Amino acid sequence: MATSAPDEPTIGDIGEFGLIDRVRAEIGDNRHVLLGPGDDAAHVSTKDGSFLVSTDLLVEGRHFRRDWSSAHDIGRKAAACNLSDINAMGGVATALTLGFGAPADLPVSWVLEMTRGFEVECAHVGAHIVGGDVTASDKIVIAVTAMGDVSRPVLRSGALPGDVVAYAGQLGLAGAGFAALSRGFRSPKAAVDAHRVPHPPYAAGPQAAGAGATAMTDISDGLLADLGHIAEASGVAIDLVSSTFVIPEPVATVSEALGVDALTFMLTGGDDYALVATFSSQASLPEGWTAIGAVSDGAGILVDGKTYEGPAGHQHFR
Amino acid sequence: MATSAPDEPTIGDIGEFGLIDRVRAEIGDNRHVLLGPGDDAAHVSTKDGSFLVSTDLLVEGRHFRRDWSSAHDIGRKAAACNLSDINAMGGVATALTLGFGAPADLPVSWVLEMTRGFEVECAHVGAHIVGGDVTASDKIVIAVTAMGDVSRPVLRSGALPGDVVAYAGQLGLAGAGFAALSRGFRSPKAAVDAHRVPHPPYAAGPQAAGAGATAMTDISDGLLADLGHIAEASGVAIDLVSSTFVIPEPVATVSEALGVDALTFMLTGGDDYALVATFSSQASLPEGWTAIGAVSDGAGILVDGKTYEGPAGHQHFR
Repeated sequence: MATSAPDEPTIGDIGEFGLIDRVRAEIGDNRHVLLGPGDDAAHVSTKDGSFLVSTDLLVEGRHFRRDWSSAHDIGRKAAACNLSDINAMGGVATALTLGFGAPADLPVSWVLEMTRGFEVECAHVGAHIVGGDVTASDKIVIAVTAMGDVSRPVLRSGALPGDVVAYAGQLGLAGAGFAALSRGFRSPKAAVDAHRVPHPPYAAGPQAAGAGATAMTDISDGLLADLGHIAEASGVAIDLVSSTFVIPEPVATVSEALGVDALTFMLTGGDDYALVATFSSQASLPEGWTAIGAVSDGAGILVDGKTYEGPAGHQHFR
Repeated sequence: MATSAPDEPTIGDIGEFGLIDRVRAEIGDNRHVLLGPGDDAAHVSTKDGSFLVSTDLLVEGRHFRRDWSSAHDIGRKAAACNLSDINAMGGVATALTLGFGAPADLPVSWVLEMTRGFEVECAHVGAHIVGGDVTASDKIVIAVTAMGDVSRPVLRSGALPGDVVAYAGQLGLAGAGFAALSRGFRSPKAAVDAHRVPHPPYAAGPQAAGAGATAMTDISDGLLADLGHIAEASGVAIDLVSSTFVIPEPVATVSEALGVDALTFMLTGGDDYALVATFSSQASLPEGWTAIGAVSDGAGILVDGKTYEGPAGHQHFR
């Protein structure tokens, strides 16, 4: 069995993003890849065209809990987080594969409910499961790969100084729901439900691409963390104005009950799969998008001119 | 926590293939799917063309063991079994995604070696990793999705009475290697190595498609089990002639050492990722293909005119 030598770094030492960087360095150039690892989805050429592809691996106890969420909800969320990656490129998902591992004593009904939830979520964009694999494993594992069409992929790297920063979809709700569930609360329902089943703004991705968005990503780890990827990839700074955020009522409720600043949920709450994008200041924002800041020269994300001192976004292994 | 009611069937009760059938019944029709679940890979249409896609989920302790195989070997095998699915449709893989779950104390070097092995195997067909996901999990989980190009996909359902049955690649070697390792042997090297790293005949898939193969699949669960899928999908019977099999020397060695009929490894051994296909009797077999039988009216697989009474192929959950 391979075990770690005392001075050999483990993946826990370097963390999720450190590991991704190291793995990426091992991967060769590919003539089929129009856009490789490092954005929400890859853009792959075919003999006659191209498609988008993105993958996620969800593990019981880390990404979902069977005592918090129904099988149907878990299926919906597993689909949503992948459909969102295609959405975040300005694309529309068409086909998904589903790898499923579970212990032998899992009821068949659980798997069928999970599949139904998965298909219900896929139906929002007209996509379906096209293939899969099942295997035995100690804990439930759900591996999803989503593929889709795109006309003009919107990357993380195109933001320019002077651009407007805007978001579409829900912000802070799932994070507030997770915080409530973690403290043993089962309400407010809108927040807890948002943690169980996110509602990505599926129309907003292609809409932003059509409106000329210069950069875009989805918010899975938290606004600051994910906007940080845009800032880094684009080589720009981003200034957010906290007064422009509209705090949803359930977020305010959880904030009060738990004594956590509501802005924390807005800036660091993940799992809502909202979109954040940058647009030229000359462009008119599509309906449903809220301007929250601006792109400038420099690096990093500022909130009201200062570095935000709050809990960081989630990172695996750490 | 969802637990099984006394009379509620579990996935262990209905087994891998029962579960796949039940899940498949939940999946709706899809205008983007030229060929959906049920073959080696799905064939998906894009706005300007099409691509093949297939997925596999590999779990430590079930699909690989770190004390039997190096990280590099595990990476190669994880890639090979997916590249083989594209090969079995007559296609050529171009892009793969890699989902990776592991405990935090796993050395970084293990992951990098696994990635290198994965890329080495992909290089056989000119494919690369285009995206991925990493997460923490108790055991190592490797989720692979392979995508590729195809001109004329060869399905499982096209075999016709009168066709010749032939295979390309290695048969029985990996199964013999697995049997040897299971009994504590570390030799014969060729068999043990074949279990660790299969050598799918990557040229043979597109070659068979070009030669007009009427049906094709890869041999992951064993020749009888996988040929059974062709017989069932095509609504035909298949008669194999055991004297036409060329038993590889290492298979004969393991057979003698363990007192197992060598034919058992040839007929039921999995994990070599050879191809088996059917061709019109008028077609000339491409180089590297060995004729082993014929397609006839009826159902099921016969060996020398009889049902083969031996150990069945592997099935998960059971």
